[in-house]
Amino acid sequence: MIFERVVIIGVGQIGASLAAAGRRSGALGRVCGVGRNPANLARAMELGLVDRVGSDLEEAVADADLVVVAAPVQASLDLLSRAAAASPRGCVLSDVGSVKGPVLEAAEAVGVGHRFVGAHPIAGGTGRGSAAADPLLFKDRTVVLTPGAATDGQAVERIVGLWEACGARVVKMTAADHDAGVALSSHLPQMAAFALCALAGSSGLDALTDLCGSGFRDTTRIADSDGQMWLEIASANRGELVAIMKEFELLWAEMTRAVEDADGEGLGEIIDRARSFRGRIGRGD
Amino acid sequence: MIFERVVIIGVGQIGASLAAAGRRSGALGRVCGVGRNPANLARAMELGLVDRVGSDLEEAVADADLVVVAAPVQASLDLLSRAAAASPRGCVLSDVGSVKGPVLEAAEAVGVGHRFVGAHPIAGGTGRGSAAADPLLFKDRTVVLTPGAATDGQAVERIVGLWEACGARVVKMTAADHDAGVALSSHLPQMAAFALCALAGSSGLDALTDLCGSGFRDTTRIADSDGQMWLEIASANRGELVAIMKEFELLWAEMTRAVEDADGEGLGEIIDRARSFRGRIGRGD
Repeated sequence: MIFERVVIIGVGQIGASLAAAGRRSGALGRVCGVGRNPANLARAMELGLVDRVGSDLEEAVADADLVVVAAPVQASLDLLSRAAAASPRGCVLSDVGSVKGPVLEAAEAVGVGHRFVGAHPIAGGTGRGSAAADPLLFKDRTVVLTPGAATDGQAVERIVGLWEACGARVVKMTAADHDAGVALSSHLPQMAAFALCALAGSSGLDALTDLCGSGFRDTTRIADSDGQMWLEIASANRGELVAIMKEFELLWAEMTRAVEDADGEGLGEIIDRARSFRGRIGRGD
Repeated sequence: MIFERVVIIGVGQIGASLAAAGRRSGALGRVCGVGRNPANLARAMELGLVDRVGSDLEEAVADADLVVVAAPVQASLDLLSRAAAASPRGCVLSDVGSVKGPVLEAAEAVGVGHRFVGAHPIAGGTGRGSAAADPLLFKDRTVVLTPGAATDGQAVERIVGLWEACGARVVKMTAADHDAGVALSSHLPQMAAFALCALAGSSGLDALTDLCGSGFRDTTRIADSDGQMWLEIASANRGELVAIMKEFELLWAEMTRAVEDADGEGLGEIIDRARSFRGRIGRGD
């Protein structure tokens, strides 16, 4: 057992899956789920994902040795500060958010940088709430840890152990590298999928849905995601996202020019570069 | 039986699947596959997809009552002209290409507009050659027919019957509407997938492949496509593709500005429009 008294703040798909996977593996002892939605908490109890539930964060974390904030990006900052203030000195703090710079800064600002280990599991689908929990959600998935300069090495290794016990492959990098990377690997394709669907939605071509084959469907699958969540992510990672969106815009203009000028060589070079990268990441899942 | 003596020019995945599905349903009688690759033709015979094979187009079509050109976009124009010249007057001509304006114009230019029925099955994966043929490839898929103003109604109805016998849902529209539609539904997402992967390929971020989850993988699945084929498609549908790429560029600039200016309302409106369209086309395949 790596952590005995665990509090997970936010019992959504990710938080509840971590509770289930961690308990099942023996890495986590007693897990308390904290949240605001009584029906969701009751469901988590019914499904046996957590040992107890509560709505009072300060009370729940008072004797914890691990607190994981598993809430939307914007809410996480405040929840982390509250957990930092109310938890014992030796308690490790972590999160599961998809942008890592702001939460690390928040932890450092409230003086818990040494015991905060930011984490980002590259997993999770469109499921919502504890009902969508799956103890195998992290199996063979990558989890990125972004410890800060002052983070205690032992705290990091315990969090590594937890995620490995859940079946994940752990990778460490700086929060800055992570945020630049996900701007390109996750937030940019999300914006592209939104743009493709928004354009299709305002096209006025009656027959358009007849013409949408598996290419359009795959490319835009993620456009069917929580809009509010993506507004928060775009805001939290604004600097990196704007930078990569501008790079995309330049490349797009270059491709448009190549099509317009019948510059097969220019377009072909870009296509070759694309295919080469796509070949490196494999077919997926 | 709708056609008795059929020639399919180009025995790739689509052509060979049409041969197999048409023969199996009884809509097609004897089918001859014409191509340049002896190994691929031999494989089509071995698999029982066609009744005979040949490399001499003119000889093969001399007594045909249906000729289907199932070759890459650029080659199709010349092959169609040759088939038009060498086939009997009553022979129906068709194709399966993904751009419909140029091939209709080519048919009209050589005086066979009345017996040419352009078709575009929205089906087919990344498989190549007759070995990738599947008689169920068109089942429950959409096939778009784009008859011209002068196309004989009876020829159209026979081609409708053929595709319906293969299990497809047939939709008719003008070649112009088709080409504008696929520029948006197919060629634009293809360019977006290429752009995302090309940018990723030149990013220099070591950890990028670790950060590519199912979102990136789905969004860019089609970037692993035949580059030469896409150069030909981009060229054949240049006008429509450039127009929609420029519209995309304007929308993208608007989204970038909204992220940069923390304009959650502006970005939210675009995301809502996107989600609404995505909801209409369903999860797909």
